[in-house]
Amino acid sequence: MEGISILWILVATALVFFMQAGFAMVETGFTRAKNAGNIIMKNLMDFSIGAPIYWLVGFGIMFGVGNGFAGTFDLMSLGDYSAVLPNGVPLYAFLIFQTVFCATASTIVSGAMAERTKFSSYCIYSAIISLLVYPISGHWIWGGGWLAQLGFHDFAGSTAVHMVGGVAALIGAAILGPRIGKFKNGKAKAIPGHSLTLGALGVFILWFCWFGFNGGSTLSFTGDAPFYASKVFVNTNLAASIATVTVMIITWIKFKKPDVSMTLNGSLAGLVAITAGCDTVSPWAAALIGILAGFAVVFGIRFIENILKIDDPVGAVGVHGICGALGTLFVGLFSDGSGTSGLQGLFIGGNGKLLGVQALGVVTVAAWVAVVMTALFFILKYTNGLRVSHEVEVAGLDIAEHGLVSYADFMPLKPMGITSVGKDYSPLHKFICAKSGKKLEGVDEPKPVPMHESVPVEIVMEDKNGVVASDVKFSKVTVVCNQSKFEDLKRELGAIGITGITVTQVLGCGQQKGTPEYYRGAPLEITLLPKIKVEVVVCKVPVTQVITATKKALYTGHIGDGKIFVYNVEDVIKVRTGETGYDALQDE
Amino acid sequence: MEGISILWILVATALVFFMQAGFAMVETGFTRAKNAGNIIMKNLMDFSIGAPIYWLVGFGIMFGVGNGFAGTFDLMSLGDYSAVLPNGVPLYAFLIFQTVFCATASTIVSGAMAERTKFSSYCIYSAIISLLVYPISGHWIWGGGWLAQLGFHDFAGSTAVHMVGGVAALIGAAILGPRIGKFKNGKAKAIPGHSLTLGALGVFILWFCWFGFNGGSTLSFTGDAPFYASKVFVNTNLAASIATVTVMIITWIKFKKPDVSMTLNGSLAGLVAITAGCDTVSPWAAALIGILAGFAVVFGIRFIENILKIDDPVGAVGVHGICGALGTLFVGLFSDGSGTSGLQGLFIGGNGKLLGVQALGVVTVAAWVAVVMTALFFILKYTNGLRVSHEVEVAGLDIAEHGLVSYADFMPLKPMGITSVGKDYSPLHKFICAKSGKKLEGVDEPKPVPMHESVPVEIVMEDKNGVVASDVKFSKVTVVCNQSKFEDLKRELGAIGITGITVTQVLGCGQQKGTPEYYRGAPLEITLLPKIKVEVVVCKVPVTQVITATKKALYTGHIGDGKIFVYNVEDVIKVRTGETGYDALQDE
Amino acid sequence: MEGISILWILVATALVFFMQAGFAMVETGFTRAKNAGNIIMKNLMDFSIGAPIYWLVGFGIMFGVGNGFAGTFDLMSLGDYSAVLPNGVPLYAFLIFQTVFCATASTIVSGAMAERTKFSSYCIYSAIISLLVYPISGHWIWGGGWLAQLGFHDFAGSTAVHMVGGVAALIGAAILGPRIGKFKNGKAKAIPGHSLTLGALGVFILWFCWFGFNGGSTLSFTGDAPFYASKVFVNTNLAASIATVTVMIITWIKFKKPDVSMTLNGSLAGLVAITAGCDTVSPWAAALIGILAGFAVVFGIRFIENILKIDDPVGAVGVHGICGALGTLFVGLFSDGSGTSGLQGLFIGGNGKLLGVQALGVVTVAAWVAVVMTALFFILKYTNGLRVSHEVEVAGLDIAEHGLVSYADFMPLKPMGITSVGKDYSPLHKFICAKSGKKLEGVDEPKPVPMHESVPVEIVMEDKNGVVASDVKFSKVTVVCNQSKFEDLKRELGAIGITGITVTQVLGCGQQKGTPEYYRGAPLEITLLPKIKVEVVVCKVPVTQVITATKKALYTGHIGDGKIFVYNVEDVIKVRTGETGYDALQDE
Repeated sequence: MEGISILWILVATALVFFMQAGFAMVETGFTRAKNAGNIIMKNLMDFSIGAPIYWLVGFGIMFGVGNGFAGTFDLMSLGDYSAVLPNGVPLYAFLIFQTVFCATASTIVSGAMAERTKFSSYCIYSAIISLLVYPISGHWIWGGGWLAQLGFHDFAGSTAVHMVGGVAALIGAAILGPRIGKFKNGKAKAIPGHSLTLGALGVFILWFCWFGFNGGSTLSFTGDAPFYASKVFVNTNLAASIATVTVMIITWIKFKKPDVSMTLNGSLAGLVAITAGCDTVSPWAAALIGILAGFAVVFGIRFIENILKIDDPVGAVGVHGICGALGTLFVGLFSDGSGTSGLQGLFIGGNGKLLGVQALGVVTVAAWVAVVMTALFFILKYTNGLRVSHEVEVAGLDIAEHGLVSYADFMPLKPMGITSVGKDYSPLHKFICAKSGKKLEGVDEPKPVPMHESVPVEIVMEDKNGVVASDVKFSKVTVVCNQSKFEDLKRELGAIGITGITVTQVLGCGQQKGTPEYYRGAPLEITLLPKIKVEVVVCKVPVTQVITATKKALYTGHIGDGKIFVYNVEDVIKVRTGETGYDALQDE
Repeated sequence: MEGISILWILVATALVFFMQAGFAMVETGFTRAKNAGNIIMKNLMDFSIGAPIYWLVGFGIMFGVGNGFAGTFDLMSLGDYSAVLPNGVPLYAFLIFQTVFCATASTIVSGAMAERTKFSSYCIYSAIISLLVYPISGHWIWGGGWLAQLGFHDFAGSTAVHMVGGVAALIGAAILGPRIGKFKNGKAKAIPGHSLTLGALGVFILWFCWFGFNGGSTLSFTGDAPFYASKVFVNTNLAASIATVTVMIITWIKFKKPDVSMTLNGSLAGLVAITAGCDTVSPWAAALIGILAGFAVVFGIRFIENILKIDDPVGAVGVHGICGALGTLFVGLFSDGSGTSGLQGLFIGGNGKLLGVQALGVVTVAAWVAVVMTALFFILKYTNGLRVSHEVEVAGLDIAEHGLVSYADFMPLKPMGITSVGKDYSPLHKFICAKSGKKLEGVDEPKPVPMHESVPVEIVMEDKNGVVASDVKFSKVTVVCNQSKFEDLKRELGAIGITGITVTQVLGCGQQKGTPEYYRGAPLEITLLPKIKVEVVVCKVPVTQVITATKKALYTGHIGDGKIFVYNVEDVIKVRTGETGYDALQDE
Repeated sequence: MEGISILWILVATALVFFMQAGFAMVETGFTRAKNAGNIIMKNLMDFSIGAPIYWLVGFGIMFGVGNGFAGTFDLMSLGDYSAVLPNGVPLYAFLIFQTVFCATASTIVSGAMAERTKFSSYCIYSAIISLLVYPISGHWIWGGGWLAQLGFHDFAGSTAVHMVGGVAALIGAAILGPRIGKFKNGKAKAIPGHSLTLGALGVFILWFCWFGFNGGSTLSFTGDAPFYASKVFVNTNLAASIATVTVMIITWIKFKKPDVSMTLNGSLAGLVAITAGCDTVSPWAAALIGILAGFAVVFGIRFIENILKIDDPVGAVGVHGICGALGTLFVGLFSDGSGTSGLQGLFIGGNGKLLGVQALGVVTVAAWVAVVMTALFFILKYTNGLRVSHEVEVAGLDIAEHGLVSYADFMPLKPMGITSVGKDYSPLHKFICAKSGKKLEGVDEPKPVPMHESVPVEIVMEDKNGVVASDVKFSKVTVVCNQSKFEDLKRELGAIGITGITVTQVLGCGQQKGTPEYYRGAPLEITLLPKIKVEVVVCKVPVTQVITATKKALYTGHIGDGKIFVYNVEDVIKVRTGETGYDALQDE
């Protein structure tokens, strides 16, 4: 056995597994909170359904000797794989490494089908791709099948993993149809995700793990392999970095501001595009591939959205499908014949043979995946149903499919009630406490503080005409304005003696004017803008003075300066002292 | 020295350390935001207190030659450990690997004791488990103690780490008593966590790190070790995947919907259960263990909650305690005699000897931990106090124990005031600026925009009878309804010419009817349902028309269609133009 | 080639890369949500701009033979580096390892300059530090430059990486000036971050990766290297743990409560301080260094904030600058002459020579960075501009610099509108659907439920005097109180028959009294306290009874018991039944 090769493969396996966390964070972060639990669950099932199925059947189909089209049916991967095993590497190491690769292809699809797919259908899809779709084309490329025999070079899986996932994602998203509200009058609208920070964490995790994904694909750490692994690290990192910068610059020029979400997609685009050729191109070519991937992903995502009118919430098709295909073709252009590819690319002195084989591979694999997935998704559509109902989609899949109150959107106020004593206590606890002769701790009804007797409730407000009951006039002045104006407003109100303020975060609806903001290149239609509602109740201070102070704080002369509303208040009671009316508003 | 074994151990060490992040995310995500900082702090302290103490004393007690019960007292681990060191591995590598394992056992407990434990007592507990509890039973199992001599097989610590943590968690949670509101009339109630996404991230991190936890436990990478490490990877992954799917299916059948949070527990259950025998069982047995672990965790958690009435917020007892014990027993059933276990399990042709030893180990270790932890927690309870007061628990431990405004629950509006100039500036900055002769940047009082002089404030509203001051009638119509109805409502209001809308997220209280939702199998009692409050102020548009439009948008005939409230408004002022009354509501 | 050394370096490279995720989480979590996207983007650009530039030019300047001051200009690192390459390690492996180190130095700065730096200027800074600043001082220390020749010992970069970043951070933060609101009347105010949980995740990620950062710096895994790598792991972990506990204790004593955020900084302080000498000090010295780092970071951060009046939002200067410098000096005190340092420290029997060299290195490197960065930041300030405008800073950099609606602060209500049918559908989808003869799924306008005809709208409310239109009096009672009182209030209201409650989370403004809370040692000025607003509309139940019940629930006699407001309501309509007035409030 070659211990060092095995160690390398196992470390890479752990990293590639961890890509699942990256995908989960990217997909959750870039979609809405009401579907977060559902997306998590789909990612978890991609791996948890796919991995056992790949062990049961998929691995045999991919790596069994078989023929040029497929391997063999080998339940629980018990056969003899010595023909395909890397030198000195045991079956178990190779099996687990291939398992985590399979799961990566599978999980790509969940992003494109996010926020509207029926969960049970997704589980079935997930089983089929690991059982059949990925193993067959994988056999062609890595299992000694017909493409491998032609000299097709896909080092770590731009085609075998990413394009397979990307094409399945395209078909899935197309057959599902767009999310409600994605297109309006034929124009794509931005539906921003709910946590850019988690999305970014996901991208960092993926980039980190990609060192295992590409590096581990040497499948060896003896002979030349350490050199190639090192080169793979340099190329992978360069392509990703440069694609990131490229996308940032493109979005800056095109949409006036550097788009964070699209730039994060840029990192992934570079990673996908370099995956096929990371062993066989020079660093300068890796840099160039990064630039090309940056352009491909921005314009690819726009094309899919604006021309094909397909709704891919996280850009999975652009990243994995388009950049996967291009990355495979780039090998035909930039390969210097090193690595496991024996042929040189068109731009490096080779003839077009390698490019031809690469193109053939891309087209046939894409066709294979497209045909099978179209059939599968249509079968699902007309049997189990592929898409959730309008009502479920609007309400969010978390509550409808999993009974989950959507977490991030709105925090349920926690039940803070009193535990009833004694009988709800754990028998073990009670046993222990009984032995120790102590009373139960922490569960006593808190003693109610006796209310101050000397401040009776004395108010009259039965007048049906809405006339103020107390003998002074109270008014509530409500100001709806931009959050950024709050400090100014507080200062001005403080200057006229008002310190008791209640602030609520609200959404103000109105037509947006001026330059639009872009999110991933789609215009962001924020008809609901975050505002604050500031409420003060005054008695001593005249309402006109409050209005003047408010106007002083808010006035800029531009649209969006806010509005002031004045209401009548019937009475005010301060709980601590029991004072009502005028007195209740003083001294606090 | 065996470089490759050391490298393997060190990489595994880093991964096992990173489990702390996984535990922190799982425990924070599955509990309420008001305690997030406290949970983070407890996790951090588990490691930061435990690691130095293990180095100072614990390691010697665990691995010093000593006798069958305990090792030796060896301050700062300076002794001679050549008897226990793996072949060619230096003390430092072995020490750090064992340190991160110890910290794992310790951190399991924090989840079960979450949301109600006094922080200072927790720090003391944390020190004791690393100083004494874990090292003693660890000595029995891994330090050459009496269980090791009997042939007890616990490859990576189902008992030594997880069950130790799980039993301590059980005792701790039982002695603490349930959180306020957990049991009502003897029935367990769901208290959902605040971020399923972070919880899921934690599970992915743990799974990732488990490859190091189980894989690294070969403690070698020479000879047969690489083969066994590969097998460990396959088994670990299979058991976890299949347990995940099993739990999903069980919850789907039992609670009608696939429960995300419990399914995530399922992954951990599979990981814990396979840990003892991951080197010595075949993949098919690993798959079976996954299925059994899935059942064990669902019914175990329900048993602890519903029968024992113990409140374990994150399911730590079910996952680590129950599956740890079962996983250890499974070795006695499924071991094929490979790996470091020389004996075959009952179902693989062995006699019951191995099973007997495994059972003996589980019982004695559980007893040891239970006795010591019961004593410890009672001592803490009657000296320092174990549980926070009712008031602190309700308010949240973040604010009470750490002075932290609870972050996620409610974002404090950021202080956005104006910095006073000059004297608050950094001396270095002022020095630099003085040299450069430039004025300070970014700290000027922003020039107030002069208010439009031509729009004076002219309102009369001093009438004490609440009579509208302007000569037109304004009404505020407030609608409280489901969030999902908002778009319909906006459309209908738009159709009658209303565009200015203010939306607030509120919680509506009411009795819940129909099928209950379940969270981890406990009925979710959402008496506070997320709603939106939509407010429009109208003047030109008659109130009846607004009501009709609203009813058209909201009406379904089911409970929960919402309510409409009508209020009188005294006046409205548009800040930008200074217009009041009718004019203020037009054209925007 | 030495496969095992290369494998070690590559694994370490991946880990050091992943520190970017750690920094991104720490910096985002410890600052405000309105700048989260901007911080992510700066971190991403630090790496993505820095890595290609380091490959293009920086690496040659750092490791080219050159002279004592600098290496050579070597475009795309194509030269001969055999003089500096570790034994048997190819250029690619060494290059990528050094690249991720360079990016670490660069990214430290973003935290100190967070929340107010112009993005385009930050990109330029980022390019310059990777192009010139880091490579020059790096050449002195690790590239065979003059400090290396003197015997300066900085094993993994306390000075070369962390202090370089920390000094640049200091200069940047000083020249930028403090964030608006950071200092008031010369006193530092706390500006809490928006997610402690993410900040903690970042710290755990950094700690995890630090094993690669320090461990990988053996640059070899043959000969003695595995032993030193193991020692490095033990020392790194001990220093970090003990620094964490030290900071917790200091803050507990000094600010009365253990401060979570500062304690997390403590972990990083220990890691930075041990980085220079982790191979050459004994574990007891590592523990001592942890204690010293704990003191240094707490008092260092207070010094920078309170004495220098520099605003460093995440404590980067204290952690990386101060602890980096001290850690380097500690080598001169505690080195036992092992590792790659041949000399013993002052306290371990050496003369002061090593200490002298270490001090010389710290001073000269700090001076180099300070001079160049001061020049750079001033040039940026007077050309492109270094700081955003007052308005942009208040609004948040996300919206202003990147067109991002701030995510976590306020979730934009998702567009839930109806997709218009047909023509917005993807051509591919339509093609497929046309073929299959089925109508488009999931995009039908949902059929409106016909409104109950039998319940007509019949209300009169045109009265201009605000007189109640129906013949019963409705009142809205609004209670503003502490969140923790909600359950009590609900119980009391329930007892008098009120179940329909609407709850809103609001912020109440008022003067804070009593003991202040501290956040990282700065007093937390929460003038806006989280409260809830509970609204009930009553008709049958007399308002006085509601007030009495409310007072019973809320009264404690302390400040903050809350206030009750009473409003008139004109009418109420229940949508489901169409009932108005009194009837609308019954039975639900």
